[in-house]
Amino acid sequence: MTSTTPPRRRRQLPTTEELKIWRAFIETAESLRSELSARLQNDSSLSTGDYSVLLALSEAEGERMRSSDLAAAVDWERSRLSHHLGRMERRDLIRRENCATDNRGAEVVLAPAGAEAFRGATVPHLRAVRELFVDALTPDQLAAAADFTEALRASLGKTGSR
Amino acid sequence: MTSTTPPRRRRQLPTTEELKIWRAFIETAESLRSELSARLQNDSSLSTGDYSVLLALSEAEGERMRSSDLAAAVDWERSRLSHHLGRMERRDLIRRENCATDNRGAEVVLAPAGAEAFRGATVPHLRAVRELFVDALTPDQLAAAADFTEALRASLGKTGSR
Repeated sequence: MTSTTPPRRRRQLPTTEELKIWRAFIETAESLRSELSARLQNDSSLSTGDYSVLLALSEAEGERMRSSDLAAAVDWERSRLSHHLGRMERRDLIRRENCATDNRGAEVVLAPAGAEAFRGATVPHLRAVRELFVDALTPDQLAAAADFTEALRASLGKTGSR
Repeated sequence: MTSTTPPRRRRQLPTTEELKIWRAFIETAESLRSELSARLQNDSSLSTGDYSVLLALSEAEGERMRSSDLAAAVDWERSRLSHHLGRMERRDLIRRENCATDNRGAEVVLAPAGAEAFRGATVPHLRAVRELFVDALTPDQLAAAADFTEALRASLGKTGSR
């Protein structure tokens, strides 16, 4: 924050230093996501989208979820999820079952090939998370990350976005 | 870290708590990117990719860059950049000029419509960064975010990825 910045502008726009932190933060998060995604694809032929869906299903009771609940769990729009599930269904990773007694959308079920792909992908993926995230940080930095992530999440929740 | 986890497994895989921090971090960074991207598109009809390219060009000397330097600045593969620049050129946001004396690829030049779009987009975008990132954090949390980012970036640099 420089003393020459007029007060009104200072309240509305980030300072050069704040903007530098922002840019480094969002670019680094993107590089990390991209590196993990490349490793996942290379080790397991799964995209991060596939992995998120398989993870949510494998943690769900009976390894099945309503598509509306799955959309909320992976934080995607319904239409994006529907297209993605179509592709995963053609690869036998999941199945969709219509439910006559309920209008909350089809049930999405983890298929045997999906369970197998998820099991095979998990250990290398978690090792990569350990290497690139956990081991890159001191325990204090990791605790600080939990703290500022919570603050960001609370603020995002207030905007009424997805 | 639970005392029942065997030592060897503990060294290789993240603990439940570490994994929880990781998931919250990467999901929050993605939600933040997604919310800023939606606002940018809504306020200015620019994608975040468009904005990154226009930002790099507007900061470059003479508002022009070699496509190889631009690819490095926005951290994209050359082929992805090339497709994106084709779309931006059709919207008159940029121009590409071949350079006969040099084999480092075409020069990409900020076009008047691109400069205008960038100017119009910048203030609302920076206000959104201020609201969703800077104002969401205390000064200590912001400093912690800078420190954490630097540690992750250093670690990513060591993997030899892009």
